[in-house]
Amino acid sequence: MLFFTQCFGAVLDLIHLRFQHYKAKRVFSAAGQLVCVVNPTHSLKYAPTRCAAAQASTEQGILPPCHHHEAVHDPQLVPCTCPLFSCPWEGHLEVVVSHLRQTHRINILQGAEIVFLATDMHLPAPTDWIIMHSCLGHQFLLVLRKQEKYEGHPQFFATMMLIGTPTQADNFTYRLELNRNQRRLKWEATPRSILECVDSVISDGDCLVLNTSLAQLFSDNGSLAIGIAITTSKVHSSEAEM
Amino acid sequence: MLFFTQCFGAVLDLIHLRFQHYKAKRVFSAAGQLVCVVNPTHSLKYAPTRCAAAQASTEQGILPPCHHHEAVHDPQLVPCTCPLFSCPWEGHLEVVVSHLRQTHRINILQGAEIVFLATDMHLPAPTDWIIMHSCLGHQFLLVLRKQEKYEGHPQFFATMMLIGTPTQADNFTYRLELNRNQRRLKWEATPRSILECVDSVISDGDCLVLNTSLAQLFSDNGSLAIGIAITTSKVHSSEAEM
Repeated sequence: MLFFTQCFGAVLDLIHLRFQHYKAKRVFSAAGQLVCVVNPTHSLKYAPTRCAAAQASTEQGILPPCHHHEAVHDPQLVPCTCPLFSCPWEGHLEVVVSHLRQTHRINILQGAEIVFLATDMHLPAPTDWIIMHSCLGHQFLLVLRKQEKYEGHPQFFATMMLIGTPTQADNFTYRLELNRNQRRLKWEATPRSILECVDSVISDGDCLVLNTSLAQLFSDNGSLAIGIAITTSKVHSSEAEM
Repeated sequence: MLFFTQCFGAVLDLIHLRFQHYKAKRVFSAAGQLVCVVNPTHSLKYAPTRCAAAQASTEQGILPPCHHHEAVHDPQLVPCTCPLFSCPWEGHLEVVVSHLRQTHRINILQGAEIVFLATDMHLPAPTDWIIMHSCLGHQFLLVLRKQEKYEGHPQFFATMMLIGTPTQADNFTYRLELNRNQRRLKWEATPRSILECVDSVISDGDCLVLNTSLAQLFSDNGSLAIGIAITTSKVHSSEAEM
């Protein structure tokens, strides 16, 4: 009996996912963009992690192992930078993608412009929505995180990391765009390298930040669509060092 | 002696302002944009105001006098909507601009695209930076506010209001753009009518919202440059009612 109940639950989940995917496809098909429905993962870490330990060691004047490739005991090895879990894995930069796919089941999408459709935005913090994006010969990790920086006031943070070195990351610009209800919000920046901690990028606030009220304005039925585009870096024509 | 000290202080202030203006002009001259240096005004209200009273009366089922033109006792009269002061003035919509200029000393700028350079971003909340912008045959009010929505965590809120009716406001789109340090943040929306409370727009979070850390990333020596552009409304091509 329990087996049948579980099977029925699984079928219902599949139908729900299928419905969300078709709805998103219908919306974005006109724009010819690839839509990826991304389900949330309730973050299992937030216990003292490798990054937290790294930050503590930075305060003591020691280089953090997850901030700089050079600081990992074997310079050929990179610790697992998946922001979801405190994972003991470490390996060469070239195999990070396959580790993230196989161990953490993170999907990878191809295309110059994609739409990231994060579902169930109402879930309590901390929650992460994660996907990999393959573009211009490189792989990028998009992280959307719901987190309470100020207790009782959850915010959404979105950033893009290159699965590569900081020098390689400097060659790209990523754009995240929200567009709904006659409102549009765009964030453009150079991606950070995955060798840096996603936690510190988010705690520095150097990413797209949304209050709950803005996230609600841009979301529909609890799903938030983020348009993503990656280009090779060009000097921002109107930018000036003020 | 006191007189000379005061004169010297005034001269120093003038030199400082002049320096800021020339610096901003130098930065933006390449883009051919008009720069306006806007000094902060420490908000004198936040006592129970007309808007607060209006919100209280809304809770009691009475239409707020500052939310809808129709609800003002004389439909030809508009209360003063200057967000700085709890001002008892009311008058016709056509004379709001001259009231704001003459009584509240708010500058007015002309031009399709202007740069709003808010100085002294470090000042404690609540602080407002306000200017009027004349464009496409109408006048708009730009309000940048530093406010502590969550105690101890000041945020910056920027919005644009049309000095006109909500129906007129629907014909325009405004854009606020921050651009510095290889980061760019753009907010586009339909302006609200000045007949609505700027306080409620900000408390709803339906505007450009910046955390202190993001504001610091975009500011230079305590000044934040916001590029402003107003256009007549067009349907956002890629927008979809998701």
